[in-house]
Amino acid sequence: MRIDIITVLPNLLDGALSESIIKRAQDKGLVEIVIHNLRDYTSDPRRTVDDYPYGGEAGMVMLAEPIFKCIEGLQSEREYDEVIYTSPDGITLSQGESNRLSTLGNIIILCGHYKGVDHRVREALITREISIGDYVLTGGELAAAVITDSVVRLLPGAIGDESSALSDSFQDGLLAPPVYTRPSEFRGMRVPDVLLSGNFAEIDKWKFEQAMERTETLRPDLMNSEL
Amino acid sequence: MRIDIITVLPNLLDGALSESIIKRAQDKGLVEIVIHNLRDYTSDPRRTVDDYPYGGEAGMVMLAEPIFKCIEGLQSEREYDEVIYTSPDGITLSQGESNRLSTLGNIIILCGHYKGVDHRVREALITREISIGDYVLTGGELAAAVITDSVVRLLPGAIGDESSALSDSFQDGLLAPPVYTRPSEFRGMRVPDVLLSGNFAEIDKWKFEQAMERTETLRPDLMNSEL
Repeated sequence: MRIDIITVLPNLLDGALSESIIKRAQDKGLVEIVIHNLRDYTSDPRRTVDDYPYGGEAGMVMLAEPIFKCIEGLQSEREYDEVIYTSPDGITLSQGESNRLSTLGNIIILCGHYKGVDHRVREALITREISIGDYVLTGGELAAAVITDSVVRLLPGAIGDESSALSDSFQDGLLAPPVYTRPSEFRGMRVPDVLLSGNFAEIDKWKFEQAMERTETLRPDLMNSEL
Repeated sequence: MRIDIITVLPNLLDGALSESIIKRAQDKGLVEIVIHNLRDYTSDPRRTVDDYPYGGEAGMVMLAEPIFKCIEGLQSEREYDEVIYTSPDGITLSQGESNRLSTLGNIIILCGHYKGVDHRVREALITREISIGDYVLTGGELAAAVITDSVVRLLPGAIGDESSALSDSFQDGLLAPPVYTRPSEFRGMRVPDVLLSGNFAEIDKWKFEQAMERTETLRPDLMNSEL
């Protein structure tokens, strides 16, 4: 898989995507993540990427031209399955969408910044707009990092212990059960006896009941969405 | 405001929070963001922060002791309004929750990692569990960065042009209208005439209609939630 990310803050993405599992996935060759500084696609000496909006809105708008130059350049080199724009207007990212994206070959993620991109970019180039949630961020960079992280960890081999990903919250529509590690007693708080019992049938039953109970209590909407 | 973030990947958060508006807000003294490496709170020479889970689950669990040491140490120095844990089990972050958090004085954010923290940490120390969306990430670091970013940008003075924040998506329950900048024609695609008209009453009317129409089409749930 190849992920091209276009941004005005390349350092932020370098920092966010060069740690832990995401770094290992790149080192293993499971994914190639290429970060493009949008300023490298400008043609003026000041490397301008934004300008005032028409109609007197506050804030700045990202220029169409450097974005067209960058995306069309990439598309002339290989086929892309999706050109994603991070935006509050988009579909809300879900585990299902991350699963889908993880099966694709090449994707581009354009990070919105300032007041957003010139709308003509969205009409002409973007195939999918994705929001990571109903809150506003200073830019699309963290959203792009979140999308990338959620997708790359699903690539086969990215997580050392694959069964770990399968037992995550959301992957089966249930929240994960509580987890405990040593010591079995800490400041008077004891690990539930069943987890220390060595009876794996009982343990699995307890985990399932806990997952059901937590989901019913904390996120009943997740259960209804399965109907 | 002061935000203490506890993590096993301090470099990731350093990278994600030292750019653009978030960096400026710190430079201006609007917020102090302190990143704690959980390994600094271990007491063994190998600086162990995790161990195998009881009950044979795959993955590793974060130890209670270094987390207690870090959080209790902070709490002995000042009062904290919330001790947040980033977790899929939590309430889903919304603009309303970000607004609320931005009014607090001091908060701690504990980043979940691996399979999660020993459940006794959540029972004894955590006052609020927050999820940034229904998808799984490799760790809570990006979630902590997202929470921090969405909160810090709301602090008075963080964004240069304050009216820009007020016209963002979600802040008034509507998606933002399309934005355009120069040139007025790009590859045959023209900016809507009304935006070039100089008639600000008409422009405001167009923007409101566009915001309503986009919200009705793309996110009707946002409008229903206002009823």
